[in-house]
Amino acid sequence: MAEPADAPVVAELLDAFNREFDTPTPGAEVLTTRLRQLLPRENVLALLAGDPAVGVALLTFRPSVWDPGPVALLEELYVRPELRRRKIGHTILDHAMAIARKRGSETFEINVDEGDVDARRFYENHGFANTEPGQNERLLYYHRRL
Amino acid sequence: MAEPADAPVVAELLDAFNREFDTPTPGAEVLTTRLRQLLPRENVLALLAGDPAVGVALLTFRPSVWDPGPVALLEELYVRPELRRRKIGHTILDHAMAIARKRGSETFEINVDEGDVDARRFYENHGFANTEPGQNERLLYYHRRL
Repeated sequence: MAEPADAPVVAELLDAFNREFDTPTPGAEVLTTRLRQLLPRENVLALLAGDPAVGVALLTFRPSVWDPGPVALLEELYVRPELRRRKIGHTILDHAMAIARKRGSETFEINVDEGDVDARRFYENHGFANTEPGQNERLLYYHRRL
Repeated sequence: MAEPADAPVVAELLDAFNREFDTPTPGAEVLTTRLRQLLPRENVLALLAGDPAVGVALLTFRPSVWDPGPVALLEELYVRPELRRRKIGHTILDHAMAIARKRGSETFEINVDEGDVDARRFYENHGFANTEPGQNERLLYYHRRL
């Protein structure tokens, strides 16, 4: 589990993640500042794999009326490209789910790009579904800027 | 904005929502107990419309590394069936977005069933997109039980 002192390492990996996939990022410095504030909170959690770290997961927890415990959302999961296909992502995800279970979470969520076939297969192989049980309607994530 | 004392009203509407769409619900009584604990928290917010209430929104806020403010997620938005097509949902959603803006949120999210064409049109008409800006890949919501 990453400590607030690990903020620069977590920030650098998250920044690399977004740069690799051409997603906007405020840069590692801004991310470090934010992570220093967020990592001490009980509703934010980062996991690092490797030393030096080559993989990261970022999770948030939020209350739900439908579950007795908090819902866990895997905000980010990243492994450096040169170290993929070594089950590092698998290990981080398993660890993240174990921690969520320990905190009483019964629901674990992740948003995935439709075209990211590798990621979709990875999560489907780890028990995730894009539909409600017994239904075949897919669930879509919508968002807007305010 | 619903007060903790409104928990039974919020619970009854959320329970009716799930019953209407054949989604599991623990029942209004359990929901009332949970809402009494959740509504005083600053990361949970319910809005009611009408007196007696005929519509409800439930929002959660969680920290993000990508935004300076919290991300707002519209967990539920429900209007009683006999009172639809009167812009009540529109008014509640506008109110929810205004409150989120006031709290410093820059991102507002909602998960929608692919087959729920009316809901998708409603959110698209309110500025929501299922894709990232400049991309045409859809974003899918995955989940699993722990």
